[in-house]
Amino acid sequence: MSSKYGVMFVGLCGHLSTTAMAGAMAVAKKLCPPIGMISETEKFKAMPFADLSGFVFGGWDIRSCSDSRKALKDIGFDDIDQLIEISKNLEAIQSRTFPGIMLNAGEAISNISQQAHVFKTDRISTAIDKVRDDIENFKLENGLEKVVVINLASTEPLMANPEDLSSCASIQRLIAANRIDGIRPSLVYAQAAITSGCGYINFTPSEGGFSQGLVELAKEYRVPVMGSDGKTGETLVKSALAPMFAMRNLEVLSWEGYNILGNMDGKILQNAENGSTKIKSKDRLLPHILGYQPHSRVSIDYVPSLGDRKTAWDFIHFQGFLNTKMTLQFTWQGCDSALAAPLVLDLARFGILAMERGESGVMSHMASFFKSPFGIDEHSLEKQFRLLEEYCQKVSH
Amino acid sequence: MSSKYGVMFVGLCGHLSTTAMAGAMAVAKKLCPPIGMISETEKFKAMPFADLSGFVFGGWDIRSCSDSRKALKDIGFDDIDQLIEISKNLEAIQSRTFPGIMLNAGEAISNISQQAHVFKTDRISTAIDKVRDDIENFKLENGLEKVVVINLASTEPLMANPEDLSSCASIQRLIAANRIDGIRPSLVYAQAAITSGCGYINFTPSEGGFSQGLVELAKEYRVPVMGSDGKTGETLVKSALAPMFAMRNLEVLSWEGYNILGNMDGKILQNAENGSTKIKSKDRLLPHILGYQPHSRVSIDYVPSLGDRKTAWDFIHFQGFLNTKMTLQFTWQGCDSALAAPLVLDLARFGILAMERGESGVMSHMASFFKSPFGIDEHSLEKQFRLLEEYCQKVSH
Amino acid sequence: MSSKYGVMFVGLCGHLSTTAMAGAMAVAKKLCPPIGMISETEKFKAMPFADLSGFVFGGWDIRSCSDSRKALKDIGFDDIDQLIEISKNLEAIQSRTFPGIMLNAGEAISNISQQAHVFKTDRISTAIDKVRDDIENFKLENGLEKVVVINLASTEPLMANPEDLSSCASIQRLIAANRIDGIRPSLVYAQAAITSGCGYINFTPSEGGFSQGLVELAKEYRVPVMGSDGKTGETLVKSALAPMFAMRNLEVLSWEGYNILGNMDGKILQNAENGSTKIKSKDRLLPHILGYQPHSRVSIDYVPSLGDRKTAWDFIHFQGFLNTKMTLQFTWQGCDSALAAPLVLDLARFGILAMERGESGVMSHMASFFKSPFGIDEHSLEKQFRLLEEYCQKVSH
Amino acid sequence: MSSKYGVMFVGLCGHLSTTAMAGAMAVAKKLCPPIGMISETEKFKAMPFADLSGFVFGGWDIRSCSDSRKALKDIGFDDIDQLIEISKNLEAIQSRTFPGIMLNAGEAISNISQQAHVFKTDRISTAIDKVRDDIENFKLENGLEKVVVINLASTEPLMANPEDLSSCASIQRLIAANRIDGIRPSLVYAQAAITSGCGYINFTPSEGGFSQGLVELAKEYRVPVMGSDGKTGETLVKSALAPMFAMRNLEVLSWEGYNILGNMDGKILQNAENGSTKIKSKDRLLPHILGYQPHSRVSIDYVPSLGDRKTAWDFIHFQGFLNTKMTLQFTWQGCDSALAAPLVLDLARFGILAMERGESGVMSHMASFFKSPFGIDEHSLEKQFRLLEEYCQKVSH
Repeated sequence: MSSKYGVMFVGLCGHLSTTAMAGAMAVAKKLCPPIGMISETEKFKAMPFADLSGFVFGGWDIRSCSDSRKALKDIGFDDIDQLIEISKNLEAIQSRTFPGIMLNAGEAISNISQQAHVFKTDRISTAIDKVRDDIENFKLENGLEKVVVINLASTEPLMANPEDLSSCASIQRLIAANRIDGIRPSLVYAQAAITSGCGYINFTPSEGGFSQGLVELAKEYRVPVMGSDGKTGETLVKSALAPMFAMRNLEVLSWEGYNILGNMDGKILQNAENGSTKIKSKDRLLPHILGYQPHSRVSIDYVPSLGDRKTAWDFIHFQGFLNTKMTLQFTWQGCDSALAAPLVLDLARFGILAMERGESGVMSHMASFFKSPFGIDEHSLEKQFRLLEEYCQKVSH
Repeated sequence: MSSKYGVMFVGLCGHLSTTAMAGAMAVAKKLCPPIGMISETEKFKAMPFADLSGFVFGGWDIRSCSDSRKALKDIGFDDIDQLIEISKNLEAIQSRTFPGIMLNAGEAISNISQQAHVFKTDRISTAIDKVRDDIENFKLENGLEKVVVINLASTEPLMANPEDLSSCASIQRLIAANRIDGIRPSLVYAQAAITSGCGYINFTPSEGGFSQGLVELAKEYRVPVMGSDGKTGETLVKSALAPMFAMRNLEVLSWEGYNILGNMDGKILQNAENGSTKIKSKDRLLPHILGYQPHSRVSIDYVPSLGDRKTAWDFIHFQGFLNTKMTLQFTWQGCDSALAAPLVLDLARFGILAMERGESGVMSHMASFFKSPFGIDEHSLEKQFRLLEEYCQKVSH
Repeated sequence: MSSKYGVMFVGLCGHLSTTAMAGAMAVAKKLCPPIGMISETEKFKAMPFADLSGFVFGGWDIRSCSDSRKALKDIGFDDIDQLIEISKNLEAIQSRTFPGIMLNAGEAISNISQQAHVFKTDRISTAIDKVRDDIENFKLENGLEKVVVINLASTEPLMANPEDLSSCASIQRLIAANRIDGIRPSLVYAQAAITSGCGYINFTPSEGGFSQGLVELAKEYRVPVMGSDGKTGETLVKSALAPMFAMRNLEVLSWEGYNILGNMDGKILQNAENGSTKIKSKDRLLPHILGYQPHSRVSIDYVPSLGDRKTAWDFIHFQGFLNTKMTLQFTWQGCDSALAAPLVLDLARFGILAMERGESGVMSHMASFFKSPFGIDEHSLEKQFRLLEEYCQKVSH
Repeated sequence: MSSKYGVMFVGLCGHLSTTAMAGAMAVAKKLCPPIGMISETEKFKAMPFADLSGFVFGGWDIRSCSDSRKALKDIGFDDIDQLIEISKNLEAIQSRTFPGIMLNAGEAISNISQQAHVFKTDRISTAIDKVRDDIENFKLENGLEKVVVINLASTEPLMANPEDLSSCASIQRLIAANRIDGIRPSLVYAQAAITSGCGYINFTPSEGGFSQGLVELAKEYRVPVMGSDGKTGETLVKSALAPMFAMRNLEVLSWEGYNILGNMDGKILQNAENGSTKIKSKDRLLPHILGYQPHSRVSIDYVPSLGDRKTAWDFIHFQGFLNTKMTLQFTWQGCDSALAAPLVLDLARFGILAMERGESGVMSHMASFFKSPFGIDEHSLEKQFRLLEEYCQKVSH
């Protein structure tokens, strides 16, 4: 496919968005190899994916952009001339950022927002209409037919009443009653994207961004939805390692995970409310894979000096034959944005493909991309990946 | 199945053999749960496996037995009364150990052998006949019809001319010409076991114990063979983790593995000749799983204070999006015998089952048990395990 | 010295107390070498320390004793005959345990106490008198002249008004006014011990057990006092490593420490109130050693499967020449009681020695034993140890 | 002091030399803080050290210079304008590099040398005269009175007959007899530097660069000498940690150290001959600090992908009270040049100071800088540092 497609990010000015856009440009120009992108592997070469060069980026944010040149340097991109050109492109895109939605975003996110970049309203329906208008304008300006919206924003606090989102109708009632404390900004974006006929991808664990109600809505509007919470680091390793213990009938006694990171994500997650959302998402897979719940803890601490370099230490205490106790420890030292950005581009491609093929509702074959795959209880990385392979075989034959 | 089956170990007096036998008794008596045994999991409960209580143990060794009570204590088994009873059973079994074969065993193994426990001969055919007689006598004494022979002995040095073992006929020529420097003790045991109608399982990496020629022989004699080299520790973790890098298109730049251990296995492997055999076996999987050969090293060092507690540190340097370099390290602290013993019992059960079902030749569905699975190029743990599941589904339906 | 000395523990039935007493007996009988005891090293052999065989043990607890045989096995002591004899001795000692004090001990400690083992009173002065009587009776029964009291009990919650303990008089006023919410059980034991003419050692971080007021009191009663908080694991390593960064002018950006443990100590510390006391004590040394406060966190989590095997992971992020960022990580896997018990015996000996020499007040040369050495600001292990060496040189010449 | 001083490096074109010179310029211009330099700390501010801005750099190499701009980027120096200016300065210095000496340098070093940069001779005395001429010319050209020569070259192979270097006279005999196989290039540089009246610092473990004979010579020529082998990484941590085990009477059973690195140093050290020299130097301290020799191994492997980022994993197995076995592991991830360069500048300053003060012979107060401090058996980092503090107190009062 060589047409143009819109890719709109919630969180357009953040590090991840900047890395994803810069990476798409760099890969399209063959300045660096597409390492980390699954859609570029030999295995999937027969798939009719959209060209990266045809991606038209845009989106929303609640704060102004940081210096994109600095952001690029942080991720180790150091060809100076190309850097300057890509920076200019990014600045052009980010200068047209739409103001973001802040309805019931919680304290931590409010603290980092900037007045001038927040769309002011106290009505949910007004906020939804505004996002729908933004999408429409973006399409018109850029001559686009299809757009996917991807939520890359900071993790929102857990919602008090998640059951309210279990159907289209219940969400509709919340909106009609303007029950601001029952929704989050993520719900506004998702509702607006889907009802605008866009594919929607929830890369965050924010519960507003994914629910049974939204899946119903997606079926009604015949668009694909995917989520939740990109699986990029510690949880990725867990989903590869935990099946080993199950396959060998080794009993996991305790699995303790300590995550330290220093970027904006870490800063928001140090707020207990927001951190809980993330931890709930990270801690979901063990009982599914093992068949029982071992003692388990996931903690996330903010360590500013680390910047985007996330470090996780996991300690696994397990019991084997004759009750012998043994341990496995791992230390994962990853660059958060460099791990997440290629997944974002892959997801955009799979989202566009699904739209082109007229697929709608939850795309459960995308489970390997998410910490909390919606609509499926499979958490083993390899089994999740098999679902993707089966889908791709079906598509390419 | 509730009949009696013979299980003969090459290396009957070693730590692993002692642990496997003690464990079989303890599990059969319900003194401890069958953690670590795959054949005892819910998933395979429909399989017609032999009862552990029907296992009759015997075998060969080149040295006398160590104090089994001490060995049991080392592995954390501490019910004193039961310990005494199990020890007595073990002592009774080990007191009937057949003398071992030492033809071209190499220097390191010679150093730990004891004159009184070595069968003296300078003819290969005499050695084979002797092992066949031992098996026959063991069957008669114990009223057994079926026996599996499992090689648990120390790793032998690499052979100079492995090509000589590529067919039944070529092995036969080596034996006829009494080419002692072209064979190893492992070949003697395998040849004798197969031609005696026993299933044969090569739990060691010793190349004499597995070859295309032996597979041919096994087909001719209609017995199952399995091998090589039990996958218990560092390589197990590698086979669970390496597919993650492949599935995410992350490029492994270097994978360095350092293994330290203090048992007899470690002592033998510190000899460069013997160590090479093991390292070759451990270092095989990366190119298969990744599709390319990263910089890679596996080293094994003898650290006496560790005893049976093996520790491995693996350092994985990888590259992601925009060429960002990242690392994953793991430290595996396992008890070698406690990890290997349940696999040995599982293998015995699968071997007996195959004999009962009249299966012959290489059992490639057993790949998940081995570092160097014979006759199949699959090294991903999860894909190997799927082969086992498919086999078991076929058997139980 | 070969006379008899009393050594009374607050927490007589706990794991640490059991290990210290069993160890003293085992070392005195030469069943195992005195590894871990500083007082047994070549360097201090000229010191007139009391014989371990002359120690007469006793003390207080708020719960009954656990099975001492099991406790001994947990710490790897496995000579069965000796085990039985030592167990009998321990049982005899622990069967005469005095009921413990529970005035304002906080919720976590209350939860583990047992009615029958708690001395009931609602007056501080009554509790103090009771402890003094216990000491007097213990001396009479055993024909002792000198006794040291060592607090090995669980960590108490932080006190709301620590300034109240800054002088003898202020403590006296709290007692007179029966201000129960201004004291902790540790204060009762310390006050009683000192006014009974005993040396007092605060091996816990509990603030009631050490204060300027108690030091004044110790001078008045002419007895030695030492504390606080035995330095046995992660903090020990920190006090050895942190000076390296200072000596090399490397800037520590962040020092994150994660501690997991599964014994009673861990269970109590998972209570936020009690954990804060410990964390405050553990986190004290960095600014002292480095001269500035890096980003720093100490967390302690309860992981029951670990039992007495404590594991700590420390991640140190530092900056060097040309602002290059680098890291050092360590994983400490220690057995808590085996690390602490020899220090307890060493402290008892140094305490007895000080009493024999008529030394009184805070023994600042003992700083290397404590996480929060009282009356001195030196936290570098090597510099603290030099103070000990200088003291010993003075004593032995 | 504000005069000019010559600082000549053996290995002028290597990564370390480049980093040291760039760092001196950057610190002198206050572009970055002097982190990592001891001579810049508050503690030593009263010392009359030479200004970095007065350093005039020069030296020798056997190969041309690599792109200094690239080298600077590798170490994280990224102010583009300053980078360009400093690069120009470095290029000017390195373009005047004197050809290096290759007499009996061994195979690994020969492989990296370039014909055009090697001084051709087959006589030792001719090589020495040449280096002396280079020093003289360097002084004249730059109007210098005092020069220190610092050996930063690759590690040479162990010498067969180290005893030959035990006196001035024996070295003189080797030179007179032109016994090329009895010397190494490091000896040529040292002999030439000392007899030219320069201070000489052996930052490498190469044995030719330090010996009793050279110390004698230094006394005769009244110049200071320091060495050997800069203590920058794993050994630095060992010298901080090992005293902890000694001070606590914990018995180290095994101390295994695995070093992986990817720079030129690593490439040379993967040659067994050269690696042995380094390992011998790194493995020296444990028996000195502990008082006994535990099982110990130091291995160094070349992992190209790491570049200058060295990683070391150390595993320490130790025994405590009641024979309990415990472990400490650490992973050190350092940037080799960024750790070594500030030491090189500190050493230059201390060398110049010693020359100004007329000190001659081995400077044993510099022990903390070296893995194999010459003329002193102290290996504890803190005790070594105390020697430095005492020296500095003497100088500044």
